[in-house]
Amino acid sequence: MSSTLTRLPEWRALVEHRRGTVFDLRELFASDANRFARYSIAHGELLLDYSKHYLTDETVRLLVALADARCMRDWIRRLMSGERINTTENRPVLHTALRANAPVMLDGHDVTQDVAQVRAQMRRFSEALRSGAVKGATGRPISDVVNIGIGGSDLGPALAVEALAPYAAGQPRVHFMSNIDGAHVQAVLANLDPHATLAIIASKTFTTQETLTNANSVRAWLAKAVGPRTGEHFAAVTANSQAAQAFGVGKERIFEFWDWVGGRYSLWSAVGLPIAIAVGMDEYESMCDGARGMDEHFESAPLAHNLPVLMALLGVWYGDFHGTATHAVLPYDMRLKRLPDYLQQLEMESNGKRVTRDGEIVDYSTCPVVWGAPGTNGQHAFFQMLHQGTQLVPADFIACCKPHHHLPEHHSILLANCYAQTEALMRGKTADEARVELQAQGLSSEELERLLPHKVFPGNRPTSTLLLDALTPHALGALIALYEHKVFAQSVIWGVNAFDQWGVELGKRLADRILPELAQDTRVTTHDSSTNGLINYTKSKW
Amino acid sequence: MSSTLTRLPEWRALVEHRRGTVFDLRELFASDANRFARYSIAHGELLLDYSKHYLTDETVRLLVALADARCMRDWIRRLMSGERINTTENRPVLHTALRANAPVMLDGHDVTQDVAQVRAQMRRFSEALRSGAVKGATGRPISDVVNIGIGGSDLGPALAVEALAPYAAGQPRVHFMSNIDGAHVQAVLANLDPHATLAIIASKTFTTQETLTNANSVRAWLAKAVGPRTGEHFAAVTANSQAAQAFGVGKERIFEFWDWVGGRYSLWSAVGLPIAIAVGMDEYESMCDGARGMDEHFESAPLAHNLPVLMALLGVWYGDFHGTATHAVLPYDMRLKRLPDYLQQLEMESNGKRVTRDGEIVDYSTCPVVWGAPGTNGQHAFFQMLHQGTQLVPADFIACCKPHHHLPEHHSILLANCYAQTEALMRGKTADEARVELQAQGLSSEELERLLPHKVFPGNRPTSTLLLDALTPHALGALIALYEHKVFAQSVIWGVNAFDQWGVELGKRLADRILPELAQDTRVTTHDSSTNGLINYTKSKW
Repeated sequence: MSSTLTRLPEWRALVEHRRGTVFDLRELFASDANRFARYSIAHGELLLDYSKHYLTDETVRLLVALADARCMRDWIRRLMSGERINTTENRPVLHTALRANAPVMLDGHDVTQDVAQVRAQMRRFSEALRSGAVKGATGRPISDVVNIGIGGSDLGPALAVEALAPYAAGQPRVHFMSNIDGAHVQAVLANLDPHATLAIIASKTFTTQETLTNANSVRAWLAKAVGPRTGEHFAAVTANSQAAQAFGVGKERIFEFWDWVGGRYSLWSAVGLPIAIAVGMDEYESMCDGARGMDEHFESAPLAHNLPVLMALLGVWYGDFHGTATHAVLPYDMRLKRLPDYLQQLEMESNGKRVTRDGEIVDYSTCPVVWGAPGTNGQHAFFQMLHQGTQLVPADFIACCKPHHHLPEHHSILLANCYAQTEALMRGKTADEARVELQAQGLSSEELERLLPHKVFPGNRPTSTLLLDALTPHALGALIALYEHKVFAQSVIWGVNAFDQWGVELGKRLADRILPELAQDTRVTTHDSSTNGLINYTKSKW
Repeated sequence: MSSTLTRLPEWRALVEHRRGTVFDLRELFASDANRFARYSIAHGELLLDYSKHYLTDETVRLLVALADARCMRDWIRRLMSGERINTTENRPVLHTALRANAPVMLDGHDVTQDVAQVRAQMRRFSEALRSGAVKGATGRPISDVVNIGIGGSDLGPALAVEALAPYAAGQPRVHFMSNIDGAHVQAVLANLDPHATLAIIASKTFTTQETLTNANSVRAWLAKAVGPRTGEHFAAVTANSQAAQAFGVGKERIFEFWDWVGGRYSLWSAVGLPIAIAVGMDEYESMCDGARGMDEHFESAPLAHNLPVLMALLGVWYGDFHGTATHAVLPYDMRLKRLPDYLQQLEMESNGKRVTRDGEIVDYSTCPVVWGAPGTNGQHAFFQMLHQGTQLVPADFIACCKPHHHLPEHHSILLANCYAQTEALMRGKTADEARVELQAQGLSSEELERLLPHKVFPGNRPTSTLLLDALTPHALGALIALYEHKVFAQSVIWGVNAFDQWGVELGKRLADRILPELAQDTRVTTHDSSTNGLINYTKSKW
């Protein structure tokens, strides 16, 4: 029996359209000189070129019809208005309220007032840190801030701090400690002076095992140098103020974050504090403004010209109708090198689900594997497979027209490579074209025929290109919000709840069982033979 | 018509085996208490547990039969003996000679003598740098070394320098500059003192656009501080000694690398110089010894107990018979955080091909998308999708029994999570098990039924676990060689040449055409409308 989604006439129309149409990108470009104008949208400081995709006006019409059939507009309204759409956790989803400039009511209360209060607290604290007014227990001004957090409490701030480095004053320096691996703790602390270091503990529940274990080790490291007054070296971002106080964090340094903010959408909350510390509160707020601009676009633009909706529909088109399993994110910008990591969480934790909101097991593909690396590095690593491998990998190429540096030759080469790659992926090189080239090299005909198949590029590989005017805080905010809403729009098509993450629970539970077993002297026999074997082998090496 | 490979009776036997067998991992473990002992192999300081896979003795027998049908043993011999198996480039493939301890003859000449010479040169130079004897043009000892290289001239050394940080003396510090993006150049140079900085230019041809452009910018940065004698701040690793000398590198600081070393296998050549500088030549040679141990195992172990061959066959089993498209690499070790990037090149550039050595277009899947991130970070990012998504993602979990740090609690938590994840992926959680848990929480039956489907984990998700005794140079060498040979063994099954990379040529060519167009004042019209549009839009923003 088919699922609710695949039974829809709009879905079946797409199946038919796919079956009955040859999408030949070279041909589509050859037959329409206006294809770029037709399938690109400039919005503020962003341009989305989606012309190098398997689509015609009919494709767009059918995809939008599918979005309509899934009540996309209504879902967008429900998201923006604070309904309890995170149904399995019975929570509203209000990350957009964090950047709103009009009241957002939740149970009769305007949450933007709470947001404004925490924002004011962030401004005070970040400005005090940046001015050198915050001192450690031994009187030294804080020169280094360590953000202790994992997942959403790490990836978003780390992305933004790296991306906006040209806006940083350089003081205090901001570092990120995420992994429970003691090697990470050691590596981060290696070059820091405890007298001048402050750590932010970012955990909604204040119980995240990695974060709290790391925080305890950092506290021990501080105590050795500064004595018992380690509390002066901590701040906390949490919904559990009591636990943070019990840890020793002063009340005025505890920044609230609410249960209506999902971890992977939390850089707009006080989880963004490291960003404000690194680049200043004005730039942080400019990032929020950029995101709000995208919120407004998402809410108001017609679906066929709505950037997040279009990107969402393209993902559905490839994953569900062309059988693609992955989606590559290829920023031609070293400062966006953490974007693939960030989007891995945003997309795969949100939509990596096989059960719909209504409890139906799906019979279609949901979230692809999201992966990537900065260009041009990727060209020297895995692009071989994109060009001549056996899998179709749709990709987002992302670049900035203007750099922040003064090495214009570098930037031109960077962009030339970016545009050349999408051109090459689209055009490919036919056997006839390859033959002409090989003939020009004077190969014998035997040698030529032997090499020819290796020199052919099948082409017809689809890509989007996203151009930012420059990597400003405002543009970064818009870019992140674009992907957030793309992910939400896909969840609407797939019918899944993008805001829970039950799939992370089982592993945590089992780890709690294994941890004491690692400390036992006796052989462990409580698991399958593989898990037992791994535990016992490990202990035999200790 | 089917391809040579898929026509093989051994292939068709696997198709039948797949069709006729239910692989239920819980069941397989329940019915065989010795499954771990049966399907795990300890080799030196490595343990491979492949028991959590869809396999029985019959599966192993059929997979090995396929390897035999593809003449695996003979291909291994050809690889090790220096035959010209890179046929499309007419080159031998001799990275194993770089770590051999017996003569390897190429055209009547023992190449290991050349290797020994370059090794001696690496030892002299790295020791001089480490002792502070190497001075810049203005008489200052070198404190920082920048490796300028991309792809294979970057990923391998960067992986090893990070992985072996506990073995580093701390002087000189080693940095990596790869991307053409000027932001990367600026970020690397920001904290360096030109008087005390030496750069290694690593490029086989000495024409790699990114590397040479970056080298020129570094030279300009040096010249501003030290004047015209910038040559004293460079070394080069290249097969094009003339070009390096023309750039200004002194002859004694040019390290040869040969055309029989592929870029992605080059960390065993002088491309490994940054490793020797960071951790010392003895540790670098220990890494080579570890790799040689794996070479010997690959050459001599029976296929059914041959680690690289088994890992290769598992990849083929999933990709070609179970339809998986990706392969996750999940090091539970922050020092191996670059391993996924490294393996992306090693695997995808080697086997991301759709044409066999004989020019046949394949009708089967070759290289998957290789991706991953360190645990436990991945658990807080994309593991949701691994557990409850719609795609099967086979994964390698990699961990070290003993850490280098003194935070044992951290290490136990790290390993407990690693083992718990493979257990959770294998077992899952049935509806009955989830129901019992929800009942214990006292949910109403309506609420329980609503939540139940979200709490179910399908399980039966296969993983390998690789345990290293500790992340020593020797173990790292073995680990890298293990993957190198896995990739080669897969190329043998798929019939592709793992050592060329024609798929990177077209983009380079097209970039050369676009670069001058970016400098023109006039609108560009020579491409498809998308590529024209992107170029013209960019210029409108300048």
